[in-house]
Order: sequence, then C-alpha cells, then structure tokens
Amino acid sequence: MALRHYTLDFSLSTAVDSTSTVAGLLSIFHEQELTETVHDTNGHGYLATFVGKHGRLVILRVHSRGLVTIDLQCYEEDNIAQLDNLLNALEKKLKVLLNGNITRIKKLPALVRGAKVDRYWPTADGRIVEYDIDQVVYDEDSDYQNIKILHSRQYGNILVLDGDVNLAESDFAYTQAITGNGRESYAGKEVLILGGGDGGILAELVKKKPKMITMVEIDQKVIDGCKRHMRKTCGDILDNLKGDCYQILIEDCVPLLKKYVREGRMFDYVINDLTAIPISTAPEEDSMWEFLRLILDLSIQVLHPRGKYFTQGNSATLTEALSLYEEQLGKLSCPVDFRKEVVCVPSYLEQWVFYTAWKK
Amino acid sequence: MALRHYTLDFSLSTAVDSTSTVAGLLSIFHEQELTETVHDTNGHGYLATFVGKHGRLVILRVHSRGLVTIDLQCYEEDNIAQLDNLLNALEKKLKVLLNGNITRIKKLPALVRGAKVDRYWPTADGRIVEYDIDQVVYDEDSDYQNIKILHSRQYGNILVLDGDVNLAESDFAYTQAITGNGRESYAGKEVLILGGGDGGILAELVKKKPKMITMVEIDQKVIDGCKRHMRKTCGDILDNLKGDCYQILIEDCVPLLKKYVREGRMFDYVINDLTAIPISTAPEEDSMWEFLRLILDLSIQVLHPRGKYFTQGNSATLTEALSLYEEQLGKLSCPVDFRKEVVCVPSYLEQWVFYTAWKK
Repeated sequence: MALRHYTLDFSLSTAVDSTSTVAGLLSIFHEQELTETVHDTNGHGYLATFVGKHGRLVILRVHSRGLVTIDLQCYEEDNIAQLDNLLNALEKKLKVLLNGNITRIKKLPALVRGAKVDRYWPTADGRIVEYDIDQVVYDEDSDYQNIKILHSRQYGNILVLDGDVNLAESDFAYTQAITGNGRESYAGKEVLILGGGDGGILAELVKKKPKMITMVEIDQKVIDGCKRHMRKTCGDILDNLKGDCYQILIEDCVPLLKKYVREGRMFDYVINDLTAIPISTAPEEDSMWEFLRLILDLSIQVLHPRGKYFTQGNSATLTEALSLYEEQLGKLSCPVDFRKEVVCVPSYLEQWVFYTAWKK
Repeated sequence: MALRHYTLDFSLSTAVDSTSTVAGLLSIFHEQELTETVHDTNGHGYLATFVGKHGRLVILRVHSRGLVTIDLQCYEEDNIAQLDNLLNALEKKLKVLLNGNITRIKKLPALVRGAKVDRYWPTADGRIVEYDIDQVVYDEDSDYQNIKILHSRQYGNILVLDGDVNLAESDFAYTQAITGNGRESYAGKEVLILGGGDGGILAELVKKKPKMITMVEIDQKVIDGCKRHMRKTCGDILDNLKGDCYQILIEDCVPLLKKYVREGRMFDYVINDLTAIPISTAPEEDSMWEFLRLILDLSIQVLHPRGKYFTQGNSATLTEALSLYEEQLGKLSCPVDFRKEVVCVPSYLEQWVFYTAWKK
C-alpha cells in the first residue's frame, strides 16, 4: 500500500482573511463529499481537515502571515485523475480568491510514501531527491551492511550500501576521478585497491596493463550482487577472483595493510574506495575519524615514495567534514601533500570531492 | 513565513492493530501538549490530528494495510530541536511497538514550504529535487518570461527561466555538449547561435578563432542578468554586443532566419540554444511542434552542405517527447541525418539528450 501526498502552497504578499478564503473553497470540498473538521489553533490561523471516501484526507491551512497550504493524501490505487481535478479546482479557485496578493504558487510532485520501491535517497548533504527507480534488482543483508541494487532508467543499476548511493552504471566519472582522471600511467605498476567491490576501478585499471592489482573487499555479497547486476561497471572482471594481473582478496583491509607494512611491501598506487564510513571487523579505534586516519596512515606507509594515494572525500557542500578529513591528512606518521578536485558523478545528484595525496 | 513539514513512515510486513499502536504513542503526544481529534475514516484505518502550541500540527495514520504515516508541521522559527526530539521519540516508540513487523522506516528531509528562497525545482521528468539554493540574486519579468538567477553553493549561480533550470555556472558540460564535445574545429568558421543569452557558448567559441559568430537572443533581460551574475559562464563576452569576431542581435530569431534564407546566407554551424522542447505530447500542443519544426527547417536551410546543427533535446527518460522531436527531424524540407548523445549536466539532476544533425 502506498500513499500519494500532494502539496499546494500559495505564498502571499500580505496576510489574508481566512473566513472569505475558506468560504470560497467549501463548495469544492463538499462536491467531493469531504467531511470537514475545523480545529482550534489558538491564534495560529485557520486549520481544517477534510476526510473523504477511499481514505482521502485534505488539510487546509490559512496561516496568519501570508501563506496558504493544502495537503492532499490518497491511496495509490485511488482515482488519481479525480484528485488531480480536485487539486486543480482548488488552485484555480484560490487564484481568483487571492488575486493580486500571490507571490508564488508551488505544487510539488506528489510524494509517494510507503511504496514497494523506494525512490527517495537523500543526498549526503541532506537534501530530498527522487530517483527514477522502478525496480529493486538485489536486496541482501550481509554480515556488514545492507546491499541494494536498484534499477534507474537513466543511471542504469545503482548500488546502495546501507542507504547510501555508492555507484551507478552511469558513473564512469567516479572511476575516472578516483584513478587520477587520465593523468596517471598504470602500465607496469603495482596497485592496491581498498574496497572497490563493484569492480569499476579494477575493470578499468586492468586495461592499462599494470604489473599487479590487489583488491581487498570485505564483503563477498557486494561482489555477488555487482557481478550479476552492475556489468556495465565491472564487465566480467568479478567473474574470477584471479586474473593475469589482478587478485581479489575477500577480507578486511586493516590486518592486510598491517601485514604489508611489516613486510615492507610497497605500491605505486593505493586507491581507497571504501564506503564513506568504512567497515572493519575489528576497529580498534573508537571514533570514526581515528579509524579513517588509521587506514590513511597504513595506506601511506605502503605507498612508494613517488606513489599516489587516491580517495573519494565527501559532498562538496559539507565543508566541515572535508576540513576534518584534511586535518587527518595533516596528522599522519609520514607527512603528505594533497590536492582535491570537485567532480560531478551523475547518480549522486550533488558535487563530490576527490583527494589525491602523496609523500612530501 | 515558512512551514517545515516532516514525514516519518513505517512500512510493515502485515497489517497492525491500531488500538494498541495508538495507545502506545498517546503519552508522547500528551507530553507535548498536543490536542487530539480522532476522525472517522469509514473503514480506512485510524486517523488522528493533533494540534499544539505555536501552530504545530501532527497527523497520525495507521493505515489498514501495513503502513503507519506521521506528518509533523511547524513553523520555521519554532523550537526545531524540540520537534526533532518529538519525532525521534515517536520513531523510537514505534520501533518497539511494531517490533518484528517493520520492513522500512523512512524519514525524509523536511519539506520547507512557503520559504522566501525556493529550493525545489523539479526535473523535466517530474521528480522532486531540492537544490542547495540560499539566495535569489536576480528576479525579473521580461516581455517573454520570468528570469531568475539563484545562488547554489555547489553549482554557483543558476539561471532559471519560467521555472526551468537552464544553466548553472558549474555546467561547462552543457556548453561542451552543444558545441560538439571538442570534436569540431571552429577556426575560421561562420557560426549562428539561436538564443544562448547566458553567453556560455559565445564565450567558449570566440576562443576558437572563428571567422564570425552571430548570436540572436530575443531577451535583453536574460543578457542583463547573466552578464552581472553568471560571469563564470560568460566571462566578459556579454559586456559588449560586438567584438572582433562576434555580434549579438537582440531580436526574434525566426524573421532573421527567414531573411538569411532569402539572402542565401550560409553558416558552418548552427547552434540552437533556445529553451527546452515541450514535454506535453497532447494534440493541442501540435502548434508547438510545428513551431519547433519551423525553426529546425530554417536552421537547416542556412546550414552549409557540410555544416552541423547542434541542439539540446530533453531529459533522457522522456522517450516519448524525444521520439516526437526525432519525428520532426524526419519531416524537414531538406533531409537530415542525426545522432544523439546523453550528457550529465551537473545542475540538471537528470541525464540530458543532445542532438547533432547534418544534411544528407
């Protein structure tokens, strides 16, 4: 069962007399067999609820300072055309009643609440955005997270981890950004990918004839879902965990990084493609920032003196979180320089910051 | 005056007994001094409205088939932390009451209704999206349209014509796409730009040393706004209506195109940057399609035999409108071939189709 929720708002240049406005609308409500209840708002304008057949609900508010709001809720299987007509009739009548006083009329696309397929995946910076998602193609809980792959007509399949949009098949811009935007030469190089379970980075970099790519992904179920449903991103690279110039290790990257540090193992490129808040089986650091710094620190330790570390950062508008991340970059055991770049990743619906760091 | 509207929805695997659910929540409402009205829904579940101080309104619905919805409206200047607490308390309590039965909890970012600065500019394909807009920097009605320039932290200033997001300062991808994505050589060429009042195309193409660019923009007020507020897009190109290799004509392009046809004037490139093609495919919109075809037809008539015609199309998901446009391309007096490309224009928040056409 899903509920359609319409809103229709009139912003006004001056406050309006609710009595005449409401009186002018009542015939429309009564035609639709809506039963009225007027509420006492204790001086905060006029408020009435109207309950109708089939579970229909309308809320009319004439606010005391230049705003009229209407909410209309109905079920998805209701006669939508009839309700569109009702809303249009209300809009038309209000245009007449409020003539000369209107500064804005806003009718938003209806919110669909409780639908089987959820189309609302807010941005990292907390804005509501609706995707053209029409199907859930994969939905699994692993030991680490919830993994969803959702189909969008314009972005292809979208990988969503614990409610965060990670990558869509349209998002080659992400793969390009996190591998240096075409400025690097990977031929003959040693590469370490942290995370990267969608296979996008791996599929792209094996084309560049590297010496060896090691990818460390903790969650087999991410790989299982992506190798079936994100093939525009990963091609056939996830079909085998080993190839001529790559290996995929299904394990936690933290112990592995520590082992590499002990062994003195070095990489030309370390690409951190972990989720925004990385997952580990045994985080020994309490705060998220300390854990992020641990991964950063270990990554830089296994980086060749002239190697490069790439990672995604955050929404370009989350300046505080970005500053805190940059603070961590200043606290590493081995000093680094860094630069950042703002990139448009199509399915993110927000500008995203990517970092490159290297040893001083 | 602005209204914050919160929603909190619980999707359930089975229908739930409203009596016990509601009883478990009442103490929370009463603590907040909310006055309850229970409505008769005629068998469509439980519905209660709660009116509180400061114009607060809560609507609680326990729907008959596995959905609980809560709406909370308050004024922007209300104690938002207190209302967050109320919503959190309701969520926490419902988690307990509905334990084992919950398939999804959805709390969307609050809708802000009637705010001075409007942040909601739905996509061409009708989805709700919220922008990080914090300021209206230009708002003028011309003889032709409403022109707004809105400031976004991540996209820079955004030009909005009659409610349609046209171009932001972040959208160099648009300029690239509508000029052939770097595949063309404009040096020494004759170029005609239809529309283009934001100056983005003109500013980019003058760098390519063309022989002459003629830009025909009908609306002086678009140019006035953009030359002040979209300088990342237009640079200083709009400061003068004439330069070494360009001229800007403030007039309707149709009579001008007709004059060019009569004179046998030819261009190597015609770039149609007029506002978007209509979305409606209803029969009464026929004249709009005919108007579009007229412009197309005239444009192709002034195109050199080996020239190229570039234009933006529509949202990639509006396949019907795109097909209708392609139908027009098949009806021109001079036969053309065409190709299309899907491009991510950052501020659009949807994938966009661009067309290239040329004489057969």
